[in-house]
Amino acid sequence: MYQYLTQALHRAMQTRRNVVATVCGDRRRTYGEFGERVMRLAGALRALKLEPGERVGMLALNSDRYLEYYMAVWWAGGAVNPVNIRWSAAEIVYSLDDCETRILLVDDQFIGLIGGLREQSRCLETIIYAGDSLAPEGTLSYEDLIASHGPLTDAMRSDDDLCGVFYTGGTTGFPKGVMLSHTNLLSNAMSGVAEVPIPLDWRVLHVAPLFHLAAMTVVLRAFVRGITHVVLPAFEPVALMKAVQRDQISSLLMVPTMIQMVVDHPQMTSFDLSSLKQILYGASPISEALLDRAFAAFPNVEFAQGYGMTELSAGISFLHGQWHAPGGRVPGRLRSAGQAICGVDIAVVDGEDHELPKGQIGEIVVRGPGVMLGYWNKPEETAEALRGGWMHTGDAGYMDEDGFLFVVDRIKDMIVTGAENVYSAEVENALSRHAAVATCAVVGVPSEKWGESVHAVIVLRPDATVTEEELRAHCRTLIAGYKCPRTIEFRAALPISGAGKLLKFKLREEFWQGRERQVG
Amino acid sequence: MYQYLTQALHRAMQTRRNVVATVCGDRRRTYGEFGERVMRLAGALRALKLEPGERVGMLALNSDRYLEYYMAVWWAGGAVNPVNIRWSAAEIVYSLDDCETRILLVDDQFIGLIGGLREQSRCLETIIYAGDSLAPEGTLSYEDLIASHGPLTDAMRSDDDLCGVFYTGGTTGFPKGVMLSHTNLLSNAMSGVAEVPIPLDWRVLHVAPLFHLAAMTVVLRAFVRGITHVVLPAFEPVALMKAVQRDQISSLLMVPTMIQMVVDHPQMTSFDLSSLKQILYGASPISEALLDRAFAAFPNVEFAQGYGMTELSAGISFLHGQWHAPGGRVPGRLRSAGQAICGVDIAVVDGEDHELPKGQIGEIVVRGPGVMLGYWNKPEETAEALRGGWMHTGDAGYMDEDGFLFVVDRIKDMIVTGAENVYSAEVENALSRHAAVATCAVVGVPSEKWGESVHAVIVLRPDATVTEEELRAHCRTLIAGYKCPRTIEFRAALPISGAGKLLKFKLREEFWQGRERQVG
Repeated sequence: MYQYLTQALHRAMQTRRNVVATVCGDRRRTYGEFGERVMRLAGALRALKLEPGERVGMLALNSDRYLEYYMAVWWAGGAVNPVNIRWSAAEIVYSLDDCETRILLVDDQFIGLIGGLREQSRCLETIIYAGDSLAPEGTLSYEDLIASHGPLTDAMRSDDDLCGVFYTGGTTGFPKGVMLSHTNLLSNAMSGVAEVPIPLDWRVLHVAPLFHLAAMTVVLRAFVRGITHVVLPAFEPVALMKAVQRDQISSLLMVPTMIQMVVDHPQMTSFDLSSLKQILYGASPISEALLDRAFAAFPNVEFAQGYGMTELSAGISFLHGQWHAPGGRVPGRLRSAGQAICGVDIAVVDGEDHELPKGQIGEIVVRGPGVMLGYWNKPEETAEALRGGWMHTGDAGYMDEDGFLFVVDRIKDMIVTGAENVYSAEVENALSRHAAVATCAVVGVPSEKWGESVHAVIVLRPDATVTEEELRAHCRTLIAGYKCPRTIEFRAALPISGAGKLLKFKLREEFWQGRERQVG
Repeated sequence: MYQYLTQALHRAMQTRRNVVATVCGDRRRTYGEFGERVMRLAGALRALKLEPGERVGMLALNSDRYLEYYMAVWWAGGAVNPVNIRWSAAEIVYSLDDCETRILLVDDQFIGLIGGLREQSRCLETIIYAGDSLAPEGTLSYEDLIASHGPLTDAMRSDDDLCGVFYTGGTTGFPKGVMLSHTNLLSNAMSGVAEVPIPLDWRVLHVAPLFHLAAMTVVLRAFVRGITHVVLPAFEPVALMKAVQRDQISSLLMVPTMIQMVVDHPQMTSFDLSSLKQILYGASPISEALLDRAFAAFPNVEFAQGYGMTELSAGISFLHGQWHAPGGRVPGRLRSAGQAICGVDIAVVDGEDHELPKGQIGEIVVRGPGVMLGYWNKPEETAEALRGGWMHTGDAGYMDEDGFLFVVDRIKDMIVTGAENVYSAEVENALSRHAAVATCAVVGVPSEKWGESVHAVIVLRPDATVTEEELRAHCRTLIAGYKCPRTIEFRAALPISGAGKLLKFKLREEFWQGRERQVG
């Protein structure tokens, strides 16, 4: 049916060849120039005997070359494997070898890791140095490859063909490779543009890491429209504000923490950021307090929140700008992940996959053209996740009468105590509202009587004190008795992953060793 | 992959159930009510033993029931067969029997035809009376069926499944049934919304006939967004202006003739039409003179032209509003069919399917997820039209350096004279600029010396006179000598189809009897 990701580039070269495609530092290239480079890089990959669907990795900060890499791999018929730059060398090697990645592009930031990766990996053969200096010995120069190869004809992979393996997870053990197809990513991009229009004169800034699918789908939406991409190597508030001012940025994607760092930055008022029209954010809801400060800072900007996951080709719901504007807020709605974008089915189901009535909490499941092909080399996990044709997100949530989705917890973090479901996030929210609590985590621990019981691990604020009983009394004013922690302990810190995610499974391990825990 | 047309209704019921879905005269129904009726009508179709993919016809003027029919047939797992209301009974019977249509919905306007259709058709079994009076004997009542059947669960046909057979043609003999899939129509709708955004507070007016795919894709785009449809039975300028004023219409689709009839209507200034934001038009380019009058009449309206055909799921290129606005016009561009919409490949090829350089005239070919499954029961015509994976449109045209497409003629109307290609449309345009010419048609006729020679048939304006030699001299001031008519004849009228289309094949027949004409 010819749904294919390079179509956007074909069309941009046909209709917008003199429009600037990429801006990276002082480099600017039109869609005509960008396309020429992509076709030549694809020619180089073909000369390296890239097989149809073969994975090509990239380990790099953001740059215009990252966008060329995506398009060139697809143009040559391959599949991308964008490497998480926050991972340890061992994790990187695991993901490269897991999906048999032979060719890896590396930039100046990560070229120092190459020796170790080569040593540990059993698949890695060819390193392409995508940096700005001379290519180190034993690597191929990205720019030389482009200069020395002729443009390739598009390999025309499309539809259900694999376009990439995207590694996700890490909080529950080894990462899983999510296999996405051309239709998966393209349909998500088309739905995204249909849902949140992108005018042709907009310029989008890529500041969130491009290895991450959320950032990559912003890239794809901009390609579908053929607008100008401006790329920053990584998030840094002053560099971001400089870029917005210099390149007249219209739209960007951030996480709420980034928004906070920009809005609260002392130099914020010294830049002209009036070109900004839209800030997309994801990963977590935004607080009303931060949103108020953001609106004061950016009075003409539309804020919109996306919710999704790699297995769904990124965002599948949107909380639109109208619900963020001071005049449009509905109590509680800012905590919502929004409504389904066009083309996507969202439902909330019980443990037997029956749809639940509105308002009842269950597992969020999703169906549509963006749902992954499966996990790389994991047929059982794939069958389990995709049973009945729906992607089981593992997120617990509910939907209100107007189709607004509320994500309350991870299913596996839900505690079943005396036949009642307790969502750890709800208990954590209650605990966090006590002045003495810096951070906390709530997990289910084994109980003879209740199956599981609610256990809280608390990190206190410096110099604060509070008793277990005081905390329990505080909780009882906010949530039902059976949800309040039965046991509470105080610690100096919680177990955190390299990416800053709380590792609840580590906390649970201490209590569940040798026992089987029923989940969901 | 779950690309399916009823998804839009599922989503509208989930997220916009209290929004008005349809307005038809004084009937208004929300998406909740509309969905309930659709699910019950689908239940009735299932009770009538509708098979997966089975065709269901509708012969009716526009109404809210036409929209229910589309969605209910898909919900029940069937395929629509919307009947051309301009056809003779014989043509209708041909199309019903060709694709074996057993069930036909008919409204008050056409119920009188039923006796004759029943008599002549070998397939027709069940007539559903979708009118406002009592159901005539021998027919089932649409409203009774809805009242007496429970809601059906969606049959979940999707992707490459047949969603409809759309009859096209008639200027070259019997109509052909174009088979479209769920992905065909849905991808076209998504591309359309991505290309020309539809805000959620818009109301769209359906005034072009809903059996026609161009009007139907406007319906689908509005469903994808979940906005309000307002339906008029047929085009009539005063009814249109009343509806725009009463229902605060934002957008509508017309052909240029309709635009002209509204803009030049004596009552135009007595209506408040200020809610209009967008007028989409197709079927033919618009003249600058009409556009100037239209801009004066609708200063805040964006005009956009679409080009496409049934085999492509309707529109595949757009000439956007910016090129219509008085400040944005580029000489000649208003004669363009615009640029490819996102997701669609357009190319211009020679007789051996090789892509031609920009500016050269050849056959327009199209590739993408909207290209039809094929012609019903016509495997040879299908293979010929879709050879190499591209739909061969039969239109001759060229593309400029910026990807703007110009349609110059039908390939089969192109005249090959002494190895030169002459496009009949170009010659007709030249002839039409002579004051004495009311209308004209240019065809190729057999020539011993040149293979074909250029022949013009002229209808003069009342009381006008002109000689053959004067017309030839006029042409020579506008086009190259080899393009000028070698022979000219004067007639009282040209052969025209019931739908008002010029039937060039009838003109040619007179000259080519018994001979084989090489086409394209």
